[in-house]
Amino acid sequence: MSTRNSSDLVQVLRTRSAVRQYTAQPVDDDALDRLLDAILAAPTGGNKQAWAFVAVRDPRTLRLLRAFSPGIIEPPPLVVVACFDRSRAVKDDGEFWDEGLLCVAMAVQNLLLAAHALGLGGCPAASFRRHAARTLLGLPEHLEPLLMVPVGYPKRPLASPPRRNRVEVVSYEFWGNHTLARR
Amino acid sequence: MSTRNSSDLVQVLRTRSAVRQYTAQPVDDDALDRLLDAILAAPTGGNKQAWAFVAVRDPRTLRLLRAFSPGIIEPPPLVVVACFDRSRAVKDDGEFWDEGLLCVAMAVQNLLLAAHALGLGGCPAASFRRHAARTLLGLPEHLEPLLMVPVGYPKRPLASPPRRNRVEVVSYEFWGNHTLARR
Repeated sequence: MSTRNSSDLVQVLRTRSAVRQYTAQPVDDDALDRLLDAILAAPTGGNKQAWAFVAVRDPRTLRLLRAFSPGIIEPPPLVVVACFDRSRAVKDDGEFWDEGLLCVAMAVQNLLLAAHALGLGGCPAASFRRHAARTLLGLPEHLEPLLMVPVGYPKRPLASPPRRNRVEVVSYEFWGNHTLARR
Repeated sequence: MSTRNSSDLVQVLRTRSAVRQYTAQPVDDDALDRLLDAILAAPTGGNKQAWAFVAVRDPRTLRLLRAFSPGIIEPPPLVVVACFDRSRAVKDDGEFWDEGLLCVAMAVQNLLLAAHALGLGGCPAASFRRHAARTLLGLPEHLEPLLMVPVGYPKRPLASPPRRNRVEVVSYEFWGNHTLARR
């Protein structure tokens, strides 16, 4: 990767912020395609790809999804429902492989970054009625809806809420050590 | 965001791949700083920032970390240990807030993308001895180590393992529907 790519990426990462209110502008097919490409390029432990995604733009389905998702504040033009595929989340020894959940979250982060780079925004919601989502979307038993991600064009300028002081969150070599041994 | 940013980002997302073998080149302070900036710019539900990170470059600590992490194949010059901070992962109603785990995964994805943009690579490992990591790094009770992320300069060209057919993983409007209603 070039330095240009690297500083552009850092800019995308830093300027991304949660978007909860959207204009009426739809997310067109090209944009949706790019978002899906980004999702599917996420890391996946053991290449299991224990995930599934439903992209919803139908106004009636969106209205219903929102009705049982308190985390979706204003009507978005698109919701991507990110699911964990439990049928693929099994280790070689037959044990359950919970880490697959983390890969779904990484895929959602790819989606949010691609959205931001396209001038869109979103905010994942984990609080919604699982059973209602399942029924509405016809999800089979093995797919567990994990995050609803509303996406749309931001109605207001992005705001960055204050972050914890870095020294509270990052240590070097062992916990509580804030002295970087220069290398 | 401009179109240039957007296509650069998509390129970074698409060309990133797991890196498990590293050259001896160290990750210098500047690069480490940028990786940490990327981590801390991740989404965090309710702005809880229920996370903590330990960046390890000390050769002895790296050796020990690797000894109890089967997921770390070859010695890396840097390991970032991503932790979930359970003391901050509590809802207003006092209930436990598990979704915070997903934000830690999103932060790790930011780290992997920034690493890739800087010519570095890594591969998160979820399989390691929790208790040994805790003791070695002096993690307090409320910090739960979730992922070990070895990072370094790739020893071999990146390879992209085959992915599932998109039609298996993505549906439109409801599960099993592969017809995009054009918008």
